[in-house]
Formats: sequence, C-alpha cells, structure tokens
Amino acid sequence: MALSPHRMSIRVRYPEADRLGQVNSSCYPVYMEMGRTEMLRATGMSYRELESDDCCLVVAKLHLTFHKPARYDDELVLETSIDRATSARIDHHYRFYRDEVLLAEGRTTLACVTRRGELRRMPEALLERLGLA
Amino acid sequence: MALSPHRMSIRVRYPEADRLGQVNSSCYPVYMEMGRTEMLRATGMSYRELESDDCCLVVAKLHLTFHKPARYDDELVLETSIDRATSARIDHHYRFYRDEVLLAEGRTTLACVTRRGELRRMPEALLERLGLA
Amino acid sequence: MALSPHRMSIRVRYPEADRLGQVNSSCYPVYMEMGRTEMLRATGMSYRELESDDCCLVVAKLHLTFHKPARYDDELVLETSIDRATSARIDHHYRFYRDEVLLAEGRTTLACVTRRGELRRMPEALLERLGLA
Amino acid sequence: MALSPHRMSIRVRYPEADRLGQVNSSCYPVYMEMGRTEMLRATGMSYRELESDDCCLVVAKLHLTFHKPARYDDELVLETSIDRATSARIDHHYRFYRDEVLLAEGRTTLACVTRRGELRRMPEALLERLGLA
Repeated sequence: MALSPHRMSIRVRYPEADRLGQVNSSCYPVYMEMGRTEMLRATGMSYRELESDDCCLVVAKLHLTFHKPARYDDELVLETSIDRATSARIDHHYRFYRDEVLLAEGRTTLACVTRRGELRRMPEALLERLGLA
Repeated sequence: MALSPHRMSIRVRYPEADRLGQVNSSCYPVYMEMGRTEMLRATGMSYRELESDDCCLVVAKLHLTFHKPARYDDELVLETSIDRATSARIDHHYRFYRDEVLLAEGRTTLACVTRRGELRRMPEALLERLGLA
Repeated sequence: MALSPHRMSIRVRYPEADRLGQVNSSCYPVYMEMGRTEMLRATGMSYRELESDDCCLVVAKLHLTFHKPARYDDELVLETSIDRATSARIDHHYRFYRDEVLLAEGRTTLACVTRRGELRRMPEALLERLGLA
Repeated sequence: MALSPHRMSIRVRYPEADRLGQVNSSCYPVYMEMGRTEMLRATGMSYRELESDDCCLVVAKLHLTFHKPARYDDELVLETSIDRATSARIDHHYRFYRDEVLLAEGRTTLACVTRRGELRRMPEALLERLGLA
C-alpha cells in the first residue's frame, strides 16, 4: 500500500529571500530534501541511519516549476508524495503551498549508491517503509 | 545571429560539499545564475542594471540531471548557452564539466517581470544582445 | 522588565553539514537570525512588519565560539537572550545545545537603519516589547 | 618570515544579497574560508590535500565587524593575512574592500583536528608554508 502524502510547514528564513524579496530557486532543492527526509521519519526510519548503513539516496534528476513567488517569513506548507518507487529509484513529487495556494511544484528521481558511489539496490527495509515490499 | 556558448570556471567552495563530499544539488541553481549573468556581462550588459530598469528575469522552470558528483575544491567549467529566446521567455542550457567530463546538465526557462511581479516583454536592448532583434 | 530567554529547536538540514559531517560555521549566523526573530514573534511582534515600517535591524558585530560540532539531523536547541538594549543598539546572546550540552555560543550587536541605510532610533513599540520602555 | 597578505576578488552572487539588497552576514564566513584557502594555495599547498592527510582546520572562534553593506554584483577584494600561528592554532585576519573602501573585517582562530575530531599539532609542512618553521 502506498504511503499517503506527507505535510510539513517551513518558515522562510531571512537570507532565503533575495533582493526581489522572493525565495531564491536554490532554496527549493533544500526544502525538497527536508520534505522527503521528514516523510521517511514519519514512517519510523531515519535517513541518517540509512546512510550509516551505506545507503545514500542521491539526486539523479530534479525538476521545478514556479507559479508564484514565496517570500520572507512566509509559512509554507510542503506536501511530499511518492509517484513511483522500485529497487533502483524513487520518484518524489513536491507541492509548495501558502494559504492553500500552490506556489511551486518539484520532482526528483533518487538513485541509491554506496558511500563510494557505486549503484546498489534500495534496502528491503526502506522499500517496506515505502509500502513496496 | 545567436550568441556562442559562454564558458566560465567555478571553484567549489568548502560549504558547498555535503557530508558525502559531493556538491549539493542546491548549489547548481546558484551556479546556473552565475553562468547566465556572466554570459550577459560578456555581451556588455549588466543584469544588475537590467533590474534597475525594472526588468527582472525570474526562473519559471528549472531542470537538472546529474551524471557524476562534483567535489570540494574541484575547478568546474560551466558552459552556458541559449536554446531559445523570445520577447516572453529565454531558455538557457548549462553543462558542467570537470576535466572535459560532463558532470551535470541544467535547463531554465526565464520570464521577465517588473519588480511588482507583473509579466512584461523582454526589453529590446536585451534581445539585441542575445542576437534576436 | 527584561525578556526571559527564548528557546526554539532547529533540525540541522542535509546541506548544512560539510564534508566532515559538521555544521558549517556559515550556518550559525542564519540560526541566530532565526532565534532573534522568533524571540520577537513570541512578544507578539513580527520582524517582517518592523521592516515594512522602515526599521531594519542590521548586524554590526557578530561573534561565535565553537565548543563541539553540531551534525546533520541533530535537533539543536537555540536559546536566545538579550544582554543589553538601548535606542541605538541591541546585543543578543545565543547558546546552541544538543541534549543539554553547549555546542556553540554567539553574540550580535544590531543597529537600526532605514531601508536607505541611515541610522535611526529603535522604535518605541520595539523597545516596549523588549521590556525597555 | 611571515607570509604577506593575500588578495583575491569575489563577485557577489545573486542569492547572497538579501531583501535589503545587502550581502547577508552568513556569507562572510564562506568568503573567509575562501580567503584562507586561496592564501594557502598561493604557497603551493592545497587544503583538500591537508584534509586527506587527516589535518582538518576547524573554526574555533569567529568575529565579524560590518562597516558598510556589500551589495549584489559588487566585486569585492578580500585581503587575508595571518596575525599569529603556532603549532596549536592559526589566527587569520580578513578585510573586505570595494573600491578601496573597507566594508567589513573578520577574524578567525583555527584549531587542527583529526577527522575523528581529536586535537592534533599543525603539521610541520603547513607551519613551514606559513613561514613559522
């Protein structure tokens, strides 16, 4: 059974807004990493421990579409869901809202590598958490 | 006549590498901004001045594909080119190399807005610099 | 009457840890800004609104002492207090803990300027919130 | 014989300027790390290799004083010098200029630790480069 979407709130920090007062595009990949990490933690699994077990989830592809700017001090809601997961890759989908208005959307494809950078299968325990095994 | 690709070198800073020793995905949008700004400067135009003239080029879409990790202290070569430009949008293409090996590729679509966030046409002077008018 | 110290928790983000696995020194000024902003919000005042009223609190001095490294995914407790405040400056003191162990300490001196950068007095409403008027 | 001051130029990146248009205080520790790394490189030594030899120079103390704001697209000159160095610590001094005007000053005290975090003596080769052995 698939995981239900995960929601968390993110308060925009002062240096994350640029001279137009808008959250810079480079902040969104950071937020996306937070979304998928907290989603995993909500299943009872820590990404830090996963890395200790030599399972590093690295970003292979990243897409972002911006509809409206987020601004300093906004309290954003980030909704993270999983579109597709196999033993070789996980595709996440991210939606950023402010007061129920969709500001931006993102997608990532993650691959699983050892600390030395060799491709490996996702561990069973992870796939179980994601409702795939 | 279209602009030829622009090349610049970027030395990876210490905090840009994460605990795996790899440049974090969130650094690439920053590098891409540097690439297109320096490309523009090479045509004799300053993006800072463009913004003073109430022409803000904001990222509407951003894509990244990672082939191999960049690491701390690497001297990267960033090649920026323009795939397509109209009075409404500019599509850039970015290629990151280390010793001639392609590490990552990016694409952005930029829109032109006023400082108040209203869509506007790209200024003629900009289109001329980009070889389009 | 002086404000009592404010406590908030901060989860260390993935890109905030460097290749040694330690939170980079450049993250602490960001955390400190969060500490003083949330301390102000707890008194019922928003720093964003303060800036809208042309009162910008800018960092004039910043000091940091590091005792032990913070690491990725740590849940830090940041305790912010005010050492001294006048109509010309505010001195904050910041203490970073993990499980009651002091990891780092910081201090800032803030000045109040208009958006154009001219020095101005702290507004009365702010001094009242800080227990000084 | 002591090392002479090292000068390098730094172009302020777009996301480094905040909504006031000023370089955020959190960028300066990053610049300072660049200054001391390039100073070392100018003596023929790579900090990356030093870390490979299990000599990690970590920030124990950091001070910053801000005189005037730096802004987006400014070309700053960072002058780095060494105030004092022993086998236990190195004290750097940093000065940030724009058009010969001093904008900010910083100081750091670095300690030398192994990758596991144990204090160790600075290596002889490093002290030699710094003119101390």
